[in-house]
Amino acid sequence: MQKATRQQTKEQNRNLVLKIFFERSSISRAEIARMTHLTRTTVSDIVADLIEEGLVAEIGLGSSTGGKSPILVSLVDNSRYFIGIDLAYNMFCGAIINLRNQISNMVCLPADGMDGEKSLKAIFEILDPLTRSDCQPILGIGVGTPGLVNSREGIVVNAVNLGWYDLPLARILESRYRLPVFLLNDCQAAAMGEFIYGQSPPASPNMIVVRAGHGIGSGIIINGQLFQGDGGAAGEIGHVVIVHKDGLPCRCGNFGCLETVASARAVVQQAQSLAGNSIAAQAGKDPHSVTLETLEKAVENGDEAALQIVVQAGKYLGLAVASLVGMLNIHNVVLMGEMTRFGNPWLKAIRDTVAKTALSRLTRDATIHIGSLRENGVILGAAASMVSDYSLLFGNTHLIVEQSHLINSVERAREQQLSLD
Amino acid sequence: MQKATRQQTKEQNRNLVLKIFFERSSISRAEIARMTHLTRTTVSDIVADLIEEGLVAEIGLGSSTGGKSPILVSLVDNSRYFIGIDLAYNMFCGAIINLRNQISNMVCLPADGMDGEKSLKAIFEILDPLTRSDCQPILGIGVGTPGLVNSREGIVVNAVNLGWYDLPLARILESRYRLPVFLLNDCQAAAMGEFIYGQSPPASPNMIVVRAGHGIGSGIIINGQLFQGDGGAAGEIGHVVIVHKDGLPCRCGNFGCLETVASARAVVQQAQSLAGNSIAAQAGKDPHSVTLETLEKAVENGDEAALQIVVQAGKYLGLAVASLVGMLNIHNVVLMGEMTRFGNPWLKAIRDTVAKTALSRLTRDATIHIGSLRENGVILGAAASMVSDYSLLFGNTHLIVEQSHLINSVERAREQQLSLD
Repeated sequence: MQKATRQQTKEQNRNLVLKIFFERSSISRAEIARMTHLTRTTVSDIVADLIEEGLVAEIGLGSSTGGKSPILVSLVDNSRYFIGIDLAYNMFCGAIINLRNQISNMVCLPADGMDGEKSLKAIFEILDPLTRSDCQPILGIGVGTPGLVNSREGIVVNAVNLGWYDLPLARILESRYRLPVFLLNDCQAAAMGEFIYGQSPPASPNMIVVRAGHGIGSGIIINGQLFQGDGGAAGEIGHVVIVHKDGLPCRCGNFGCLETVASARAVVQQAQSLAGNSIAAQAGKDPHSVTLETLEKAVENGDEAALQIVVQAGKYLGLAVASLVGMLNIHNVVLMGEMTRFGNPWLKAIRDTVAKTALSRLTRDATIHIGSLRENGVILGAAASMVSDYSLLFGNTHLIVEQSHLINSVERAREQQLSLD
Repeated sequence: MQKATRQQTKEQNRNLVLKIFFERSSISRAEIARMTHLTRTTVSDIVADLIEEGLVAEIGLGSSTGGKSPILVSLVDNSRYFIGIDLAYNMFCGAIINLRNQISNMVCLPADGMDGEKSLKAIFEILDPLTRSDCQPILGIGVGTPGLVNSREGIVVNAVNLGWYDLPLARILESRYRLPVFLLNDCQAAAMGEFIYGQSPPASPNMIVVRAGHGIGSGIIINGQLFQGDGGAAGEIGHVVIVHKDGLPCRCGNFGCLETVASARAVVQQAQSLAGNSIAAQAGKDPHSVTLETLEKAVENGDEAALQIVVQAGKYLGLAVASLVGMLNIHNVVLMGEMTRFGNPWLKAIRDTVAKTALSRLTRDATIHIGSLRENGVILGAAASMVSDYSLLFGNTHLIVEQSHLINSVERAREQQLSLD
């Protein structure tokens, strides 16, 4: 709890006006005053500041409602930029995002099986050209990474695939690029992306986003904010034990984890080890070359064994979704990731399992559907954590801040938004 | 997002000062100014208002730190009251709680197997004398009820034991007593009680409170606030299916729910149906008369069969706790309810199961312990939802408000606290 100072009041009112500019393509000062209940003078002062900083501009006259035609003001889409990074298991991608969440300058590098140092160098190879691009000023870098992340301290605690253990990635990138950096788990980033940019505006401020691909994870949005838990790992469902007897060994060291039965990796392995492999035969290939694509083809062609693999994976994922829905009573469940390619049979297996497992009164209002963002979900979501940080939009040059300041500033901004949204 | 008005600023500063009075036994104006960074004039004005309203009073002189001895000001513990109600399955209890959370005027009625109308009448029998007691003014009534509750609308959606379906209980009580009423699920109320009044101050703003008694439920505290989910049923783990093959029928209509294997009811049934019943024999009773108390005695006396029943119940509850901890990554887990009487063997079974089931990095920082509040947890928690609503402390008489206003005022206050805490 902090005292409300005049400065805070001013910032809050400025953020209120900014939020409207982000939501509307263009708007008049009078309309802003009407929507915010701020005085016309206050609105005019704020807009004058924003115009001077280049964040918004007058773009012409609106239609009159009787008197003089009002001057329309709009966000300048390309007046500020952010960078979003997705460290996927086989490909690192980065891109520049403007204030309207338009993506440009995408850079991707293959990234299979690298060690810790190579992983880091690959990020530099992506960020070096992006930070030097013509899109300036860049206000910050959002990074979605697999594994366990401590967002507050900017540390990748554990990312097996990338060979990172307790890596202070935010600090490393901040000192190299002199830009604020926000790290978060890739599934959490994807969840933010889906919540903010997904097709339909969410009816509730709560959402569960489950991402089933090479690994499995989820992001939990509570009251419009990503909930990361005490250790940053909220939503990490991939290693919940789901097969309690004779489960397969998991890369985490345990047995019978959700990832061993419901991930893209798991279904490919199952397809490869099918006796008298009809899927491989169909594709004219040897069993070990069966991929997610051949499995998908086989399902489309009505191969019963292939369908069973997909349906069983859906049932297992359904058990985890049922747990999440049952425990959190969140209605809006969105599915993302490579497994969504299997569409209806997979989705139906998940829905049926949830309906059977969770309390009917908890699930009858739940909707489970496949998300609208495809490959750019993590990049958009990682950048979104920065875009929504209005405090970064102060001043008219990009920020060069000390690490400790940055973390605090991001934290502060998030806390503020909690109260302002 | 709302504009920051002068009125809001004033309320925020007043709440800030009030919060300090709630936290400290007594304090000087100068110390408040130092802690809040408000000016001495602002603090003096606020304190003058609070004194006039009777909420705080000067109680004497503090020790001097050089100059004049400061006047100490303190909350007047008995200047305002709240009522808390616990509708437990065999007993309805209500009591008056003062501003220091001291309980008085406890009224209890046996409540086993009543129908809907009788249940309601029993509440009137408790509330009629409480609302007319000498403890005045009473500012509100908090009710913790079993079943599914829509807190926003003040409706008990479904409480099988009480015979209530879609009962607008808040409206009924508000029109009878002309007082604001806040309804919530009893496990959620208990969670609030434990979070606010539990022995050790929580290290994190997040907490999971699992209540295992006649039924099983939990309350999830996120960012210092009770998270109720979209439908009010967040934390309702009692009916998560935990026995997937040949599960026992549950009162909810499903099979193998957590309640069928880990509740007080379940262990008593198991003890009663033990072949060659050593527990009953030990107590010199026939098998059907075995109760939770005889089972507890048997465990204490080293009865192996009794111990097995308790340990197995703990293991099943451990699976649900592991799911919660694994999915939410919340470190602080508190256990409440009648099952806690079994102490260490039960607790150890839960802890071992969680350690085995959830990811080690998620559980190594988790602490699972038995809560400090006993029978009054629900009453305190239900009242706490009202006490912490500072907006009810405005003015110097108790509020008589329209239903719609009340709901909004509580909602508003909760939203404000989200930003102020």
